[in-house]
Amino acid sequence: MATIAEIAEWTGGQAVSSLSEGKITRVSALEDADMDAAVFASSADVLEAALQSRAGVILASTKIAAEKNDNRVVLVKDPRLAFSIVGDRLRPAAAAVIHPTAVIDPTAQIGENTSVDPGAVIGAGVRIGNGCLIGARVVIEPGVVIGNRVRIQAGAILGALGFGYARRSDGSYLMFPQQGALVIEDDVEIGANTTIDRGALEETRIGAGTKIDNLVHIGHNCRIGRNVIIAAQTGISGSSVVEDGAILGGQVGMGEHATVGPGVILGGGAGVLSGKKLFGAGQVFWGRPARPLKQYLRDLARLSRGR
Amino acid sequence: MATIAEIAEWTGGQAVSSLSEGKITRVSALEDADMDAAVFASSADVLEAALQSRAGVILASTKIAAEKNDNRVVLVKDPRLAFSIVGDRLRPAAAAVIHPTAVIDPTAQIGENTSVDPGAVIGAGVRIGNGCLIGARVVIEPGVVIGNRVRIQAGAILGALGFGYARRSDGSYLMFPQQGALVIEDDVEIGANTTIDRGALEETRIGAGTKIDNLVHIGHNCRIGRNVIIAAQTGISGSSVVEDGAILGGQVGMGEHATVGPGVILGGGAGVLSGKKLFGAGQVFWGRPARPLKQYLRDLARLSRGR
Amino acid sequence: MATIAEIAEWTGGQAVSSLSEGKITRVSALEDADMDAAVFASSADVLEAALQSRAGVILASTKIAAEKNDNRVVLVKDPRLAFSIVGDRLRPAAAAVIHPTAVIDPTAQIGENTSVDPGAVIGAGVRIGNGCLIGARVVIEPGVVIGNRVRIQAGAILGALGFGYARRSDGSYLMFPQQGALVIEDDVEIGANTTIDRGALEETRIGAGTKIDNLVHIGHNCRIGRNVIIAAQTGISGSSVVEDGAILGGQVGMGEHATVGPGVILGGGAGVLSGKKLFGAGQVFWGRPARPLKQYLRDLARLSRGR
Repeated sequence: MATIAEIAEWTGGQAVSSLSEGKITRVSALEDADMDAAVFASSADVLEAALQSRAGVILASTKIAAEKNDNRVVLVKDPRLAFSIVGDRLRPAAAAVIHPTAVIDPTAQIGENTSVDPGAVIGAGVRIGNGCLIGARVVIEPGVVIGNRVRIQAGAILGALGFGYARRSDGSYLMFPQQGALVIEDDVEIGANTTIDRGALEETRIGAGTKIDNLVHIGHNCRIGRNVIIAAQTGISGSSVVEDGAILGGQVGMGEHATVGPGVILGGGAGVLSGKKLFGAGQVFWGRPARPLKQYLRDLARLSRGR
Repeated sequence: MATIAEIAEWTGGQAVSSLSEGKITRVSALEDADMDAAVFASSADVLEAALQSRAGVILASTKIAAEKNDNRVVLVKDPRLAFSIVGDRLRPAAAAVIHPTAVIDPTAQIGENTSVDPGAVIGAGVRIGNGCLIGARVVIEPGVVIGNRVRIQAGAILGALGFGYARRSDGSYLMFPQQGALVIEDDVEIGANTTIDRGALEETRIGAGTKIDNLVHIGHNCRIGRNVIIAAQTGISGSSVVEDGAILGGQVGMGEHATVGPGVILGGGAGVLSGKKLFGAGQVFWGRPARPLKQYLRDLARLSRGR
Repeated sequence: MATIAEIAEWTGGQAVSSLSEGKITRVSALEDADMDAAVFASSADVLEAALQSRAGVILASTKIAAEKNDNRVVLVKDPRLAFSIVGDRLRPAAAAVIHPTAVIDPTAQIGENTSVDPGAVIGAGVRIGNGCLIGARVVIEPGVVIGNRVRIQAGAILGALGFGYARRSDGSYLMFPQQGALVIEDDVEIGANTTIDRGALEETRIGAGTKIDNLVHIGHNCRIGRNVIIAAQTGISGSSVVEDGAILGGQVGMGEHATVGPGVILGGGAGVLSGKKLFGAGQVFWGRPARPLKQYLRDLARLSRGR
């Protein structure tokens, strides 16, 4: 529960007029808003609807709401971010529980305020930091190291053996040693049923603050930077690198030993060939193989015009 | 066990001649058919082989079998459907069992004749209807609502947190509230290791009769209509809509806020851009970005001819 | 632990000079190598670094190392393979354990020296051979047959019901019978969270020595040959065939009733249309739809040149 003044403080917001004294207990969609709810408005239309609603506080961008003399309006730079901050602050802190059905090796170390949900399996030598959420049926293979405030959703598998083989002369395959580490840094979030392999001889590393969606695959020896976004069903082959702040859409595919530079944006379904390096902060690449967006669109247009 | 007369009744079929009095206990492939087995024939070749076999009943289309004077032949409009009906009817009804290793929150409600397989995890406030099958190690997160006769195969994760973030000024990300509902309507079937996220502020909904294959991802706030088919590894980003009767092939990708209209057919691997709307019942779209099939084929041909 | 002479024997290697008498206990990356470690060198640069390192044995290709008079060098044909052999031999054999949290139907048969990790679920009538590793939370549905030395990583689902439906006249769907078998032959390795469906009426079969990565989907009735490589997130639709020795990159998609011939190589993300057959041992196909590499590159070049 928070006063509107507290909400303004959390979000760095400014009141238009003297603020209402209501208490806010939750964030909600506009349709579900009552006097205890915070809502947000990024456009003039939504702002008008919000002002007509019973919402207790309206987080609105200064551009559109500076003139609105309503004691529920808090002016903020980024209403969606402000709304997320309020949602995060108001979320009741669940007590950290290690569920009795979780199978935790006695040599694993688990930090304070970390929850382990039913059926999770945590192997020998694993180290998990403080304030983490390990979802139901997550598997953390031996030796994996996980930082603080890491959230792993149900069914994810961390530290499986990578997919590397040597071919014998008779055409059969023998697994290359897959004995490396997997390190998940602080504030990483990992989606349901995602798989991240351990390194072969070196390590696989997921940098601090990186967010990974459901059913993503990250192969052995990959190095993913900080604050990277990886949407659902993207696959990153072994020994590839994704630098800080890059954004990968859904179903992106990266071959082995490829690099996506800092801040690069890959559109959904883009493909990066093995060994390829893409650079340019804020530059958007699209298609298979991935090309700068302008070129991709020109290629598409050509195809349609038939020239 | 059923008589051939009963099978004719179930399938709305007609005998060519007076029917054999054999008892049928199962459906089978032609190669495995004996006098207790039902088989089906949609083509003249298969019909001939079936007539040579020991099969106890042959579900054959009227077009090809009307003249076949064999007391095992039942004429039906759609032999494959008839065969499926017979298989469904003859399948022994397993007693509904809640396996003792399933972890079911005391506040969850589970209907009659619903089975919960080993290791499944059912969260607080979940409601599940009658006659459902919850596979091994399925995770149903808190508050998810599931209708009647829903079949969820092993490893699926229903109601995970969606992938929505707000970016802070320092480049780090904060999860947008993911507190909405997930509703799975009657007769939905969901494949192994598929993931369906709960809504952010609103709900995610899967319409009655929809069938979803393995390793599919459906994001937050999506609305999937009734009797939709979604093949394996398809990914549907947040806030997208798939209308009634649409068919999505495997590995289809849909961006955010996209719409696939009623009865639209997307070929395997097709990609629908964010915000795009595709309409036309029975119309086939293919490629990335998805185009009407005719255009897609023309584009391909041009590419190959080099003009 | 092994002597260098033993290592030479395992790998069919030859000493350059009289061999050091050191004991080797492990394989490692060059950076982590000490006197107890084996390393490998496939290039002259790496060889020089290895010679400067403290590594106890250096598996080097004859081409580059024949002149190196160092009592740690073992000349081999394929250093990466030799290194894999040594890693495999030196890996301590963990005692086979059936974890008490695994749920194993009393009618299932499990061979000698087979491990079953925590939370795995093994259904009625399953048969598993000797020397297998069944990972954490793997689900093996009823009746699945698994050979010897099969390694299944965490979260994989074997023998789920296939995705086949008949459409009723009202537009709703009824599952086609999915009662066939799933056979996994000897020495198959299966990645984390991969799903392989049982046959519909016939069987699904994965041939001996085949290696499958994470999050792969293989549909009902598929026949995968021997020593096939299938990289992550590839999807193979029902009733398709992949012949011996084929290599499928990541995110490949195959439609139904398609065939990939012996030794064919599909580049990452390639798509094979339903019913299509691709042949040519060692031939590389790429793109969607998959074309011979030369044609694919020509098409791409044309697109970029705009003619």
